Amino acid sequence: MSTKEVALFDYWPSPFGMRVRVALAEKGVDYEYREEDLPKGKSELLVKMNPVHKKVPVLIHNNRPVCESLIIVQYIEEVWSHKSPLLPSDPYQKALARFWADFIDKKTYETGKWVWTTKDEEQEAAKKEFIDHFKLLEQQLGDKPYFGGDSFGFVDVALIPFYSWFYVYETLGNFKIQESCPKIIAWAKRCMQKESVAKSLPDQKKVYEYALDYKKRLGSQ
Amino acid sequence: MSTKEVALFDYWPSPFGMRVRVALAEKGVDYEYREEDLPKGKSELLVKMNPVHKKVPVLIHNNRPVCESLIIVQYIEEVWSHKSPLLPSDPYQKALARFWADFIDKKTYETGKWVWTTKDEEQEAAKKEFIDHFKLLEQQLGDKPYFGGDSFGFVDVALIPFYSWFYVYETLGNFKIQESCPKIIAWAKRCMQKESVAKSLPDQKKVYEYALDYKKRLGSQ
Repeated sequence: MSTKEVALFDYWPSPFGMRVRVALAEKGVDYEYREEDLPKGKSELLVKMNPVHKKVPVLIHNNRPVCESLIIVQYIEEVWSHKSPLLPSDPYQKALARFWADFIDKKTYETGKWVWTTKDEEQEAAKKEFIDHFKLLEQQLGDKPYFGGDSFGFVDVALIPFYSWFYVYETLGNFKIQESCPKIIAWAKRCMQKESVAKSLPDQKKVYEYALDYKKRLGSQ
Repeated sequence: MSTKEVALFDYWPSPFGMRVRVALAEKGVDYEYREEDLPKGKSELLVKMNPVHKKVPVLIHNNRPVCESLIIVQYIEEVWSHKSPLLPSDPYQKALARFWADFIDKKTYETGKWVWTTKDEEQEAAKKEFIDHFKLLEQQLGDKPYFGGDSFGFVDVALIPFYSWFYVYETLGNFKIQESCPKIIAWAKRCMQKESVAKSLPDQKKVYEYALDYKKRLGSQ
């Protein structure tokens, strides 16, 4: 399917796809980027590669597909283990990293979407929940530079893509994350200084245009 | 908190708790079982050990809590790695096992509950979805004795607890899983021949009494 041994089926505003882009960049893996034009529909190849969920991202390595972003990141960690370890080797620390990545997986996308697609009282409830989640994450970060400690790790990879959506949440939600969670903003800016992150995340204003367009398509504006 | 180094906060009908019981039994780990009396409320200790989700199961090892059943099973696999490997060592096979365990996590409990707590048209839709999921799992099992291949593994641990709920689904849903998914029933019976599984799962009729009582408490009978 490609002359390169690694390919990524992705869609640029997907925070889940961004996780895989960041992990591949951290590991220095060269790959073919295959953009899906999702508003127009899923490609036959995407559905063939991920018949169960039919979703991006899908990583193809040696012609075999790997699906679900956190599973893909763990696969990348295990296959390209020589560089930039993302998970600690200690089983307890590894379980903690998996716990927080799973927490982000279960909460951040849905709560964030709830913030930017609702209004009035419902939006206030969404914002409260969003901030509560990020405060828990902030506690977990503590005074460390990264969730991974002194180095960028699995939880950082899981969370940082949502930073590209912060302008959407703040502008459409009419609030400032900085006011409740200053450490999260400082952490995100620290991550953005890494080339692996900066080159893998789209511009916040471009994501905002996408979100406005998405709302228009849904007829909710 | 205990003279034993391993303790499990659990609730007997929880399929998530059963996963941990099965994994500990597979590894031959001796532990203290701490039953939560959940209809009466969560213990202070449970909330302290799992402040984020406040749910069973929680594994305590050397006074440190590990939460979320699949994360606990992976922790058990890594700490007690000398016996009964649950995950393959090949990264691709490991990613596949994680994918199917995650699929079960996302679908089986919710769809199953949808079957036994609804009626009429809604129940028919639930049963269709339930069977569709199990057919996908059956395809994945193929002609292998276990999802793990020749030996019982991670996906088997993730799925087998739901077998203790099959009588609930079938009786309250008025259908037979055997008719659509005979290979799943044969697989479950094969698993039940393992001591680690048989001693960790409650009797199906006892789970049925629990489900009836649960419906009564919800006032939905």
